[in-house]
Amino acid sequence: MNDDFKVTPWEVTGEIDYDQLITRFGTKKMDQELIDRLAGYGELHPMLRRGVVYSHRDFDWLLDQYDKGNRFFLYTGRGPSGGTHLGHLMPWMFNRYLQDLFKVNMYFQLTDDEKYLFNENLSLEDTKMAAYENVLDFIALGFEPENTKVILDTKDIKLLYPLALKVAKRVTFSTAKAVFGFENSHNIGQIFYTSIQAAPCFIEDALYGKKTPCLIPCGIDQDAHFRVARDVAPLLGYPKPTLIYNKMFPGLTGSDKMSSSQPQTTIFTTDKPKDVKKKIGNAFTGGQVSVEEQRKLGGRPEVCSVFKYQYYLFENDDKALDDLTERCRKGEILCGECKQLLTKRINEFLEEHQRKREEAKERLHEFLLPDSC
Amino acid sequence: MNDDFKVTPWEVTGEIDYDQLITRFGTKKMDQELIDRLAGYGELHPMLRRGVVYSHRDFDWLLDQYDKGNRFFLYTGRGPSGGTHLGHLMPWMFNRYLQDLFKVNMYFQLTDDEKYLFNENLSLEDTKMAAYENVLDFIALGFEPENTKVILDTKDIKLLYPLALKVAKRVTFSTAKAVFGFENSHNIGQIFYTSIQAAPCFIEDALYGKKTPCLIPCGIDQDAHFRVARDVAPLLGYPKPTLIYNKMFPGLTGSDKMSSSQPQTTIFTTDKPKDVKKKIGNAFTGGQVSVEEQRKLGGRPEVCSVFKYQYYLFENDDKALDDLTERCRKGEILCGECKQLLTKRINEFLEEHQRKREEAKERLHEFLLPDSC
Repeated sequence: MNDDFKVTPWEVTGEIDYDQLITRFGTKKMDQELIDRLAGYGELHPMLRRGVVYSHRDFDWLLDQYDKGNRFFLYTGRGPSGGTHLGHLMPWMFNRYLQDLFKVNMYFQLTDDEKYLFNENLSLEDTKMAAYENVLDFIALGFEPENTKVILDTKDIKLLYPLALKVAKRVTFSTAKAVFGFENSHNIGQIFYTSIQAAPCFIEDALYGKKTPCLIPCGIDQDAHFRVARDVAPLLGYPKPTLIYNKMFPGLTGSDKMSSSQPQTTIFTTDKPKDVKKKIGNAFTGGQVSVEEQRKLGGRPEVCSVFKYQYYLFENDDKALDDLTERCRKGEILCGECKQLLTKRINEFLEEHQRKREEAKERLHEFLLPDSC
Repeated sequence: MNDDFKVTPWEVTGEIDYDQLITRFGTKKMDQELIDRLAGYGELHPMLRRGVVYSHRDFDWLLDQYDKGNRFFLYTGRGPSGGTHLGHLMPWMFNRYLQDLFKVNMYFQLTDDEKYLFNENLSLEDTKMAAYENVLDFIALGFEPENTKVILDTKDIKLLYPLALKVAKRVTFSTAKAVFGFENSHNIGQIFYTSIQAAPCFIEDALYGKKTPCLIPCGIDQDAHFRVARDVAPLLGYPKPTLIYNKMFPGLTGSDKMSSSQPQTTIFTTDKPKDVKKKIGNAFTGGQVSVEEQRKLGGRPEVCSVFKYQYYLFENDDKALDDLTERCRKGEILCGECKQLLTKRINEFLEEHQRKREEAKERLHEFLLPDSC
């Protein structure tokens, strides 16, 4: 068993064994029964069919509640440390899908305070600026201000702070240390911060006096925060937040997570077509060392970052994906052609996305919570 | 040497050796030279003449700055856990004196978050309610809204939070543990809280973009917070906050600090004349066991809580105080008469104070910071 990987809210390294993470964190597998049940509400998202969204906490309970007429709300977020890349869009797209399916409210938290506290080199102005860039991408995915609100921690702290205090009062340093691995050298803002990330779980109480259940679709790297939030919720008289976890979006280097700190192997939402072409051109694939070997032995889609992009995000048609897989294994398609296909897909997507992203600048104010909150 | 006392922001117990606190905390004595210098700005306050205000950090530097034309602002506060008693008024009165003397801005922080985090039995509603009661007493002392603003942590958190984050980022758990004695069982809100108490030291930067020096006249029990704030200030490009410390206002039991948790031996600003009469009647004095012994041996004003009240707060005339001391020592005045004198003084003071306190209800809104801050 591979133990040599790390998945925390601030660090994802090594080759991730996702099944082992389920055991490590104590979450549940999104099993076939639950996926079949979801199919009852509408068409299944490819991320569900393909196990990209693969684990949960109490999602079955949340559906029971929903079936009884108790609505929930969606909450996800982003730590704004830099530009938005494709890996960030993935869970937001899944949130968009769920919002369409269940017709519920959505809250999107931009944790400019977190990124300031955890990055020595970032100022609060830096993280606020990054938050602005990130939220445009979120809005560009098709959310509507009628049922979607954006939380910027430093802007909306008056709303969050009393909730955060209630959480903080119930979390000892001992717990924080055990969950996040804090040491004496961590700063006192980092230690407190999880309270701020927990606050939106209970936001409809602050906004409307309602103890609405909350569903958080996000990367499994965020589980530590929500283990804490779930322990505290009943002590405050709230339902435990429920979660759906996706795997990390792969990097172009073949590593397990796309990372903004490696801009040459990361596709940002503002990249130009020639940037994308170059980055995909340099991507790690499952191809053989020569064209002849590839024709003879075939490629290995299971390790290929170009294939993974199709699998995670760009080829929604299962049949077409199977065909691609087969052609690769048989050596019928070479890496160059595959890269061209993906580049075209990404650039088509980005052209449209960048247009919507520009429009989002005009609409952003509609998504903000009023300052009086 | 008496070591058996504890003075922290959350606990004051034992018989306090104030000179030893200077050594323990590393503050400076308010020496005659500094007191003489202060006399150059205007009449000396009795608390200065009598050593009630007795220690400082960099107050001489602040006066140098003032003499060069660099104004400072005053900052003090209150942890709103219950009603206001006479001990709370003492440093606020001294702040009022300094504001009159130097004609500077004043900020008064009500730490409803702190009291919530540190008191298991208090809700945020409780501490907010207590803050309202406390601030009326503050305003009643004669502050004016033109140069005095009230900060309520949960209300004004949007202003405080970015400053608090900047402080928090520079304070490790290691430091917080050393300064405040935190243990694993402390909650993560308590650990973060000192950042919020540090924030007003830099508030004129947030309000006006000015790095104005800050003077904090307060009880010496608050020194731990400001040791941290002073270490961090230069790292953020701010002048170190300067401090003037007063001794703790004595309790009626003869203990070293009046405490709201003992309502029968604590005089609240809303007490009725008969309450005051009863409480002073039961006060611990330096009298002898019988009238005859007292006439013969005299009393001991140095241990008498009734005398201390005159000394700390009610007899501003040094000559009259000396007379009282002498008559007590000679057995010329008995405890009953002394108690009557003090009761009369307190009730006269409270009658006027309670009238101004009622007026403060109408004026409170003028002292608040705008919500848009």
